Amino acid sequence: MKNLAPLAIAMGDPAGIGPEITAKAWAAREQQALAPFFAVGDVRAVEAVWHGPVTRINDPRETATVFPDALPVLSVADSGEILPGRPDTEGARCALQALELAVGLTRSEAASALVTGPVSKAQLYGIGFTHPGQTEFVAERCGVSAENAVMMLAGPTLRVVPITVHVPLAQVPSLISIDLIVAKARVTARGLHRNFGIEKPRLAFAGLNPHAGEGGALGREEIDYLEPAIDLLRAEGIDAVGPFAADTMFHARARAGYDVALCLYHDQGLVPLKTLHFDDGVNMTLGLPIVRTSPDHGTAFGIAGKDEANPGAMIAALRMAHSAALRRAELAASAGL
Amino acid sequence: MKNLAPLAIAMGDPAGIGPEITAKAWAAREQQALAPFFAVGDVRAVEAVWHGPVTRINDPRETATVFPDALPVLSVADSGEILPGRPDTEGARCALQALELAVGLTRSEAASALVTGPVSKAQLYGIGFTHPGQTEFVAERCGVSAENAVMMLAGPTLRVVPITVHVPLAQVPSLISIDLIVAKARVTARGLHRNFGIEKPRLAFAGLNPHAGEGGALGREEIDYLEPAIDLLRAEGIDAVGPFAADTMFHARARAGYDVALCLYHDQGLVPLKTLHFDDGVNMTLGLPIVRTSPDHGTAFGIAGKDEANPGAMIAALRMAHSAALRRAELAASAGL
Repeated sequence: MKNLAPLAIAMGDPAGIGPEITAKAWAAREQQALAPFFAVGDVRAVEAVWHGPVTRINDPRETATVFPDALPVLSVADSGEILPGRPDTEGARCALQALELAVGLTRSEAASALVTGPVSKAQLYGIGFTHPGQTEFVAERCGVSAENAVMMLAGPTLRVVPITVHVPLAQVPSLISIDLIVAKARVTARGLHRNFGIEKPRLAFAGLNPHAGEGGALGREEIDYLEPAIDLLRAEGIDAVGPFAADTMFHARARAGYDVALCLYHDQGLVPLKTLHFDDGVNMTLGLPIVRTSPDHGTAFGIAGKDEANPGAMIAALRMAHSAALRRAELAASAGL
Repeated sequence: MKNLAPLAIAMGDPAGIGPEITAKAWAAREQQALAPFFAVGDVRAVEAVWHGPVTRINDPRETATVFPDALPVLSVADSGEILPGRPDTEGARCALQALELAVGLTRSEAASALVTGPVSKAQLYGIGFTHPGQTEFVAERCGVSAENAVMMLAGPTLRVVPITVHVPLAQVPSLISIDLIVAKARVTARGLHRNFGIEKPRLAFAGLNPHAGEGGALGREEIDYLEPAIDLLRAEGIDAVGPFAADTMFHARARAGYDVALCLYHDQGLVPLKTLHFDDGVNMTLGLPIVRTSPDHGTAFGIAGKDEANPGAMIAALRMAHSAALRRAELAASAGL
């Protein structure tokens, strides 16, 4: 098996905490035994919030020699003045350029995986960005339709996939279909195998209604959509179980019974995930030809530049990306590729 | 201040785990420093699953002398044969009789508080019980309308009040109103003062939609209902804040910022509560003239009679009931009653 290329971090909005958590992750590289990575973004955004060693690189291959002594940064065209906590249009352009470059380097295997820092959607929309978020942008650049790119949130003791994501709660019941559930579950099962090496992942489904509908007395979505979808998945050989009452499936003993919880809406999955793993949650996109992870938090403009940002989620995102890249390389090697 | 009367436990369905956790709580009375209590139900249901000392009593006042050496049981008319794990109509009648008697004793102050064990709603409906659950039954017996009896779930680090409860998720958006939110919040604020002695309770509201609606982009219920309700509550002097993105309000640092989280639907509140406190969650009814708590779990017929039931939630319910009864007695004494 050949050596893995370094990981690429697209640092996100230069006025957010992305540069700071990137630098802090580098500073923790030995203690955390992190695989080599390089950052993509405006080198001045790092220098504005951190006084450690930084080295500009022009090629990801320089990472191996630079990484032990300094944070390697592939600097995109300098944006305007950097003011931590004060996002602007120039910064959004810089974030988008860094993302585009980092995706391209990962697609071309100059980087083994992509880790994306937090961006401001409001700022990106201001410069004409038309994707709902970074996930959809990365999926498009990888030639994958948005429906087939699945967002999974993962912490040390729980993985969740929300089947619907950024939609008003009132629309959720009308968006649920057998097809949607089956499609998301297939990508999830395949993703857990490719990225985590779980041969036959155990998928547990949450019901939509209180007590999973109590046999239809408190809603019929479990009977009309979830049960048929689970039957279809089982017929394909996927280990799918449920639907379970959502409130009884996230305590420690219950979590031990599955590899991923498939939830029907944003808060159903993200409430337990962030209740348990607020500081080290990772967002991983399943269904892509590349590995892509992201710390599961926002730009936190309010604390940018104050040296208060916790790099825990960035470190967790780096670890998960590296481990998934290794796993994929092993699978490719064992398939004789 | 006069001595408190003992606590009353209505043991719930005799074929469920109610009798076992009642007996196990008694066995732990010294280690847990529990206040004296007596059980109401079929004495044979206890004897079927537990070999410790049991004494039949005819009057709650016997509790003080019996409690140190045996579990005091006020036995209601014997039901049929008791088969743990095999609920039947006779058992449901027994559970209802025990509940009725225990409520009456608490109303008349022969008991200082009511703790209710788990019942089977399906069995109760079979004998003509028309209330949605024990909470509504107790409220009616106390002369309180169901709307003014508020269900609060509480664990050691979190209290939640679901504003809507046992309704299909699709109906939740249409049930939310400013009036409903304000009414539940008022009972909650008053309840935290009366039962927990919190002078000015901090109420935190969850939004309905992902990211609390993102300023209307992902739903308008926050703008149309929650914000006006919170403004009204503040104008009354209630410390109400939010609406917050539900996924960011239940990690440890966030929980430290409020005394109770008001959630808009069942799973929004019960998922974090049971994720954190599955084994020691307590259901307390606010808005009643009496103190009423309950372990936050069901009859667990599947493990009844196998000595596997965990009495943690029953012990927590006894503690919370006693502490609330003490608090109310103090408030009454300081008001010169």
